This record gives sequence, C-alpha cells and structure tokens, in this order.
Amino acid sequence: MGNFKGHALPGTFFFIMGIWWSSKSILRYIFRKQKRTCYVGSKALFQRIDILEGIVLVSMALTGMAGEQFIPGGPHLTLYDYKEGQWNQLLGWHHCTMYFFFGLLGVAEILCFTIRSLPASLPKLMLANALFVEAFIFYNHTHGREMLDIFVHQLLDLTIFLTGVVTFAEFLMRNNFLLELLRSSLILLQGTWFWQIGFVLYPPSGGPAWDLMDHSNVMFLTICFCWHYALNCIIIGVNYAFITWLVKSRLKRLCPSEVGLLKNGEREQESEEEM
Amino acid sequence: MGNFKGHALPGTFFFIMGIWWSSKSILRYIFRKQKRTCYVGSKALFQRIDILEGIVLVSMALTGMAGEQFIPGGPHLTLYDYKEGQWNQLLGWHHCTMYFFFGLLGVAEILCFTIRSLPASLPKLMLANALFVEAFIFYNHTHGREMLDIFVHQLLDLTIFLTGVVTFAEFLMRNNFLLELLRSSLILLQGTWFWQIGFVLYPPSGGPAWDLMDHSNVMFLTICFCWHYALNCIIIGVNYAFITWLVKSRLKRLCPSEVGLLKNGEREQESEEEM
Amino acid sequence: MGNFKGHALPGTFFFIMGIWWSSKSILRYIFRKQKRTCYVGSKALFQRIDILEGIVLVSMALTGMAGEQFIPGGPHLTLYDYKEGQWNQLLGWHHCTMYFFFGLLGVAEILCFTIRSLPASLPKLMLANALFVEAFIFYNHTHGREMLDIFVHQLLDLTIFLTGVVTFAEFLMRNNFLLELLRSSLILLQGTWFWQIGFVLYPPSGGPAWDLMDHSNVMFLTICFCWHYALNCIIIGVNYAFITWLVKSRLKRLCPSEVGLLKNGEREQESEEEM
Amino acid sequence: MGNFKGHALPGTFFFIMGIWWSSKSILRYIFRKQKRTCYVGSKALFQRIDILEGIVLVSMALTGMAGEQFIPGGPHLTLYDYKEGQWNQLLGWHHCTMYFFFGLLGVAEILCFTIRSLPASLPKLMLANALFVEAFIFYNHTHGREMLDIFVHQLLDLTIFLTGVVTFAEFLMRNNFLLELLRSSLILLQGTWFWQIGFVLYPPSGGPAWDLMDHSNVMFLTICFCWHYALNCIIIGVNYAFITWLVKSRLKRLCPSEVGLLKNGEREQESEEEM
Repeated sequence: MGNFKGHALPGTFFFIMGIWWSSKSILRYIFRKQKRTCYVGSKALFQRIDILEGIVLVSMALTGMAGEQFIPGGPHLTLYDYKEGQWNQLLGWHHCTMYFFFGLLGVAEILCFTIRSLPASLPKLMLANALFVEAFIFYNHTHGREMLDIFVHQLLDLTIFLTGVVTFAEFLMRNNFLLELLRSSLILLQGTWFWQIGFVLYPPSGGPAWDLMDHSNVMFLTICFCWHYALNCIIIGVNYAFITWLVKSRLKRLCPSEVGLLKNGEREQESEEEM
Repeated sequence: MGNFKGHALPGTFFFIMGIWWSSKSILRYIFRKQKRTCYVGSKALFQRIDILEGIVLVSMALTGMAGEQFIPGGPHLTLYDYKEGQWNQLLGWHHCTMYFFFGLLGVAEILCFTIRSLPASLPKLMLANALFVEAFIFYNHTHGREMLDIFVHQLLDLTIFLTGVVTFAEFLMRNNFLLELLRSSLILLQGTWFWQIGFVLYPPSGGPAWDLMDHSNVMFLTICFCWHYALNCIIIGVNYAFITWLVKSRLKRLCPSEVGLLKNGEREQESEEEM
Repeated sequence: MGNFKGHALPGTFFFIMGIWWSSKSILRYIFRKQKRTCYVGSKALFQRIDILEGIVLVSMALTGMAGEQFIPGGPHLTLYDYKEGQWNQLLGWHHCTMYFFFGLLGVAEILCFTIRSLPASLPKLMLANALFVEAFIFYNHTHGREMLDIFVHQLLDLTIFLTGVVTFAEFLMRNNFLLELLRSSLILLQGTWFWQIGFVLYPPSGGPAWDLMDHSNVMFLTICFCWHYALNCIIIGVNYAFITWLVKSRLKRLCPSEVGLLKNGEREQESEEEM
Repeated sequence: MGNFKGHALPGTFFFIMGIWWSSKSILRYIFRKQKRTCYVGSKALFQRIDILEGIVLVSMALTGMAGEQFIPGGPHLTLYDYKEGQWNQLLGWHHCTMYFFFGLLGVAEILCFTIRSLPASLPKLMLANALFVEAFIFYNHTHGREMLDIFVHQLLDLTIFLTGVVTFAEFLMRNNFLLELLRSSLILLQGTWFWQIGFVLYPPSGGPAWDLMDHSNVMFLTICFCWHYALNCIIIGVNYAFITWLVKSRLKRLCPSEVGLLKNGEREQESEEEM
C-alpha cells in the first residue's frame, strides 16, 4: 500500500462503485416515477443486477485479500512471527479486514435477493457496517506519522465516517432518493481523495515531494478537499442528466404517446404533494 | 476580509437571507393553514419567487468570487506562486470556495423549480452541504491566532454547524414549520455574530482594541452570543406577528365572510389533532 | 451563587419542575387512554394549566433576574465597570441570561395556548433552546477551578445537554409519552445534582470540606451521579403508580360501569398493535 | 474483577444474552411474517417468556450485587471507611451500580408485561438507560492504568455506547427487525470482547503477559476487535438460518398445505412493497 499504486487502486475501485451506485439509484428513481407506463419487468431486472453486484463484490474482496496476503513481502497468512517475537505485517492484515467486510456486504446482497424472506434493507446495514469498520481501522492506522500525512488520512476517515452515517440514515428511512445520491457522492469523494493522497505522499511524476510539515499545505488541502466534493457533486448531476436523457429517448421510441400524457398527469399530482 | 468591512458584508448578507427565509416560511405556513379559502395561485407565485432567489444567489456568489479574486492584493486566479515557491493567498481561495457552494445552492434552486422531475427537497440538501462545507473551512481557518480571535470564530463555526444539522433534519422531515424558523434564526445569528466579530477584532470607532488574551472577555462574549440569539428569536417572533397581521388585513378585504367561518372550523379540528 | 443556598435554590426549582412535568405527562397519558369514557373537558383544563405554567415561569424568571441583579454585591444592571476598566460581575449576568431564556419559554407557552394559529410544539422547541443555552453557558462557566469542582459541573452540564437533546427529539416526534418521562427524570436529576454540588462544594454542616484534588472523590461522584439517576427513575415510577391509582379511584366513583367495560376492549386492541 | 474469571463471567453473561435476544427477535420476525397461517397463540407465549426473562434478569442482578459485596475482600456494604478516612472498594460499588440498572430493566420487563396500561417500549428505554449508565461508569473506570489496558477498555466502552445508541433508536422506531439483530450482535461483541480483555490482561495459560506499552499490540487489537465483530455477525446469521429451518420443519408437519400457498402469496406482496 505504501506507494502511488496502492492508493490509486482503491481510489479507482471506489470511484467506479460511486458511479455505479449513483446510476442504479437514478435509474430506479426514474422507473419509479414512470411506473404506470412502460414498466417492463424492471423489478426482476434490478434484482438480477443486485445479485450480480454481490458476486462482483465478493470476488473483488477475495482477490483483494489474496493479493494483500501473497504479494512479495506480504504476510502469507502468518499473523505472528514467533522467531522475532512480533506481529507480522499488521498493515496488510488491516487491509484484509476491510476487504472482508466488503465481502460480507456482497454475501448479504446475494442472500438477500435470492432468499425472499430476508428483510430488503439488510445490504444497507451491511454497507454501513463495512464503512464504520473501515473508518475505525483507518482511525487507528496512522499512528506516529507526520502532520500532513495524518491530516489527509483524517480527511479520508471523515469521509468514510460520514458515508457510514448517511448509509445508516438511508437504512432507517428507506427509498430516500437524495440520500442515495448523497451517499454516492461521498463514495466518489473517497475515491478521488485516495488519488489525491497518492499524489501528495508519493508524487508519481518523480517531482519534489510535498513538505509534510508545512502548515500552508494543510490550508490548501482543506479547500482542495472541498473542490473534490464540488466536482463529485457535479459529476453526479451530469450523470443524472445523462441517464434521464438516455431513458427518455429510449422510452419515447418504445411507447411515445403514453409518456407524454402521463408526464402531464404526474406533474400536477406531484406539485400538489410538494406544496 | 481582515478588516471591519470584510465581516460586516457577509454579516449583512446572512442577516438579509435570514429575514427573507423566515418571511417565506411564515407566508407559506399561513397560506397552508388557510388553503381552502382564498388560495389564489400562491403555489405558482412561490415557485417564481424560488427561481428568483436562485438567480440572486448565483449572481451574488459570482460577484463574491470575482470580488475575492480581483480586489487589489487578491490572488487574481493564481493558485500557486512559482516564484516564491508557496501558495498564493489561500484565505482568499477559502472564501471563494464557500461562495462557490452557495452558488451551487442557487443553481439547485433554479433547476429544481424549472425541471419538475427533480425531487423538491434538493435545495435543502444543497443548503446543508453549503453550510457543512463553510463550517469545515472555518474550522481549518484560524490556525495560529490568538485566544479571543479563535473563540469568536469557534462560536461562528458552532452556529454554522448547527445550522447545517438543522437544515439536514429539515431535509429528512419535510414541511416542519418550526424547524424552518429555527434555521432562519440561526442564519440571523450567523449574520449578527459576523458583525460582532468585526466589532471585537477591528473596532470601527477607532477606539482601543479588545484585549485578545483576557479571559473575562471570553466570559462576556459567551453571554453576548446568547443575547444575540435571544434578540434574533425575538426578531423572528416580531416578523411572524407582522406578516400574520399583514396577510389577515389583506385577506379580510378580499374575502371577509369566508375567513371568519373557516377559522372557527379549523380551530376545532386542529385542537383535536394536537391534544 | 457561590454558596450552599445558591445551589439549593435552582435545585429545588428544577426538582419541582420535574415532578410537575412528569405528573402532567402521566395525567395526559391516562386521559388519552380512557378518552372514550369520562372525557370531561380535560382538553380545556390542560390548556388553562399550560397558560398558568407559562405565567409562573415568566414571573419566576423575572424574580430570578431581579434577584441576581439587585442582591447586595450584585451587578445592579451595570455591565461594564468603566472605573476599573473591567467587566462587572459576569457570573451574575450569566445566571440572568439563563433565566431570560426560561422566561422566553414561559412567554412561548402563554402565546401558544392563547393564539391558536401558532404551532403546538413551539414550547418544546423553546424548552430545548433554553436547555441548550444553559448547557452552553455552564460549559464556559467553570474556567480555572479545581478538578472536583470542574467534574461535578461537567456532570451537571452533561445532564442539561442530554435533557436538551431529549427535548429536541420530543419536539420532532410528538406525543411520545416515554420521552416525556425521560425528560422529566433528567430534569429531576438536574435538580438533585444541584443539591449534591452544594453539599460537595459548600458543606452546610460546617464539617470538613471535600478534598477537591483527590481522584477517589471523582470515582465516588461517578456512581453517586448514577444513584441520583436511579433514585429519580424510581420517583417517576412511584409518581406514575400514585397518579394512576388516584385517577382510577376518582373515575370509578364518577362512572364505574363504563370504565370496566372499556378497559377490556382497549386491552385487546392495544395488544394487537404492540405485537 | 481484577482477574481472568472476573472478565469471563460478564463475558459469558452478555454472550448468552446476545444469543437469547437474537433468537427471540428472529422467532418473532418469522411468526409475524407467517401470521395468517398457524398463528397459534404465539403472543401469549412471548409475553410469558418476557416475564420470565425479567425474573431471570432481576435474580441475576441481585446475585451479582450480593456477590460483589460479600466476596472475601469485598466492601460488605460499607461505603466509607471512617478509620482510614477514605472510600471503601469503589470499584466494587461501580459494578454493583451497573448490576442495579440491569435489575431495573428486569423490573421494567416484569411490570410492563403484567400491567397492560404501561407502554410496551418501556423495557427498550430501560435497556438503553442501563447501557448508557454502564458506558458512563466504564468511561470513568480506568483512570491511571497503562496504555493497552486503557485501549481495550475504550473499545469495550465504545461497544457499550453504540449498543445504547442502537437500543435508543430501536425505542424510537419500533419493530425494526434489523435494528434488533444489530443490537444483539453488539451485545455478543461485548461478551466476546470481555473474554478477549481477560486473555490480554490476565493470560489464563500462565504464559508471558502482553506488553502493555507496545504500540503494535494496539494495532493488532484494532483488527482483532473487527474480527470479533465479524464472527458475531456470522453467529447471528447462522442462528437465523437455524431457527428458520427449525420453525419451517415444525410448521410443515403441523399444517403443510397452507404454508406453501401463503408463502407464494406473501412473496409477491412483499416484493411490491420493497421495490
């Protein structure tokens, strides 16, 4: 993990997850709004997608755990080094533990959408669990490092913790579309901030490293963090516009007359509610 | 920012916003109560007002950002000073970032009330976002200053954070009139407290500056903060009384007979509910 | 304030308020359960009681503020001592500010139950406000004192803050009987803890004072705080039993036959709901 | 308490409570789902079980308190040692106080399920109370110990506090099955972590004690804590599967035809809701 690639990899993973989850939420929101029209079995489709997502998560977690254990210099499943009388590669085990909880999330998704009697919000709870565990481990992860190193990891930890809180709120109040988008944007933020940490601590250009004790760097990274968040909000917005346009143009081709009629009907009803 | 005007300006802005938002909430509350009588297209009116509000917010954010960048001695869009090898005017960039998020709020309001398919509580979420970002930046803003300076900014930060929490609660449970008033009063508090900071740190009278290391000043500013809050609660109350009186006297002229009848009918119904 | 009486007085006040509020909640709960029987205008009665409570609160707040200002050695409305160039009696002003917010609560109660168009949960919000302001002021109240002194005030502050949080939760979810009892028990705790502080810091027996730097005293006061809470829970329970018995014996005399019938009917219905 | 047994005993108690509460929640969840079929008086059964649980809790609390007081070297009901002029065995009194609040929970359960007019969520509130009191006492329990000792107790305290928060959330939103399971898993975590503390601080094997000042031990216990949690989540899952299988096989024998029919009917209805 202690290099640029070790931060770019999870960054990319979380960025892709963020895009994926936001797209899924947006699609579900649009379909729910236009339920009465061309509601062609989208429910069964979403279920199959969720199971697939679970399988992908489990396999990624297994790959990640195997990778952490068996890379050259990794712990190779040895927890305690009896020769030297000390723990063996604890940071690697930290990462494995995080992956394991995301694997549990995958298992929960697979079980929840194959066995119907399980409550539907179980995956939300497991996601919140996985995020809280990640935040907890990161909180105890950066002992004895330098100021800027600690600061960027604290911001990462703050992001993860907030994502956990938002996911838990989502678990308590179901089907809140904006909370889902908020969670996706925070997952995106985690992804891009991982990249930022990579750039700060291990500049890939080979240029001069950042001064880890300079306080003006802290001041800059404070706003840089906000810019990341603003960017990710905009990405979510663009994604929303794109998917809406895609669905609308597709649906129009399939059943052009009805959509127009219903849109007006729904509009008035909604504005009634929202006033 | 480092002078009296730099604190009086945002103070005035937030004070006006607080008055404006409280008036809007009160008007909407009164109209909702008297729905069945002279409900003359108030919905369309509110929508147009909201769009206007969004436009005002965006233009103010743009003005603020341009002002921060191009005042004499400002950063002039230069982030890094390569000559001196250091960040350029980071405090100015901090302020720009805050303005940017309030601009995003304006954009969200415009989009949300022109495109109907967007969820109506989006502006609430963006306002909470803007406030949390503001609180986050202020938290990392006052590094290395003196005790009293830090204390007054901590109180400001507390206010902003609480406003963010209340706005988020409002986002989760819609149409809670008292939460809206609470948020308005906290926004007012932020406004008047900005003025207070200006008076404490940069006395405009030219009189002797406050002793920044004296602990009895901290003790005084603690209660001064509470008095500000009490004052703002009273302002909200007076505003409520004024608007109620205004609407009643106007409505009576328009449709005098019906109002009286319905008021009694509603009264009993309400008291049923509230017992 | 800096003597035994100065702590016994607010302690007694909060203890009486706690008993009063718990009794009101319990009465309202019992009446709501037996609505369909002898529901003899209890609503109007409660309203008159609430207005009376508001008047009592306002007059007590005015008395308290006048007392703080005009006791011998008090600030006598002078905020700044220009002769000595320092603030005048800030601790007295602190107490006045707290009283003022409880006075605002009284005003809100009077207004809310005379003017019907005001939302019914306004007093709850003002109570939460008053408690948060009290907690905020106490937090900045004990600067530079000794360990045990700070510790007992921190416990007081924790109690006040928790009461504020519970009151705010009550404001958000109305008519939750157990939350009301929880708030009452915390108010009682605040009352008895004020007495405890008086006994610790200013022993009225004239016996030897507590050692303010001894850590075992902290350990003892930790559990002493819990015992206070346990005691107050039991007081609430006894109060519940007493009021239930009182109402039942009274109601039986008034309309004995109906009560028995309805109790059975309600019982089954309830147990349906709660399963 | 200061030995291995003193930690294994409460650990075993909380582990059994966790298994028991999770089983009860799962059973109730399954019965609620299959209400319309063989709903043979499960309500009355649950009530009797709850009363029994209350009696067990009260007797365990009494035993625990008596044990703490009258073990050789215990305080024997003496709070203050007037000879030596110091508090007598405060740690023992701490434990008694915790037991007392769990006893109060037992009393609340007995009262709540025998007297019908009491609100059904009272035991939830008392459980949250007992947990918060436990967390509060543990927070003031480990003054002046060594780093690792403090760390493992902080993790225990975190667990207890989170359990309290989850229980309070459960109290506010009733009948949320997953929250109940989450609480049970946290109670299990508390149980197994008590064992872990015993193994760390008082190794029963007589082997070499852990180095209480070594930071890599903190790093290891961080992930060890997560593994405990993962294990307990899996235990809950296995328990769910086992109980479901048990109930299904039993129910099939009793009324085989109806179950099959209803399962399909319910499935479709549910998936409607959850989409």
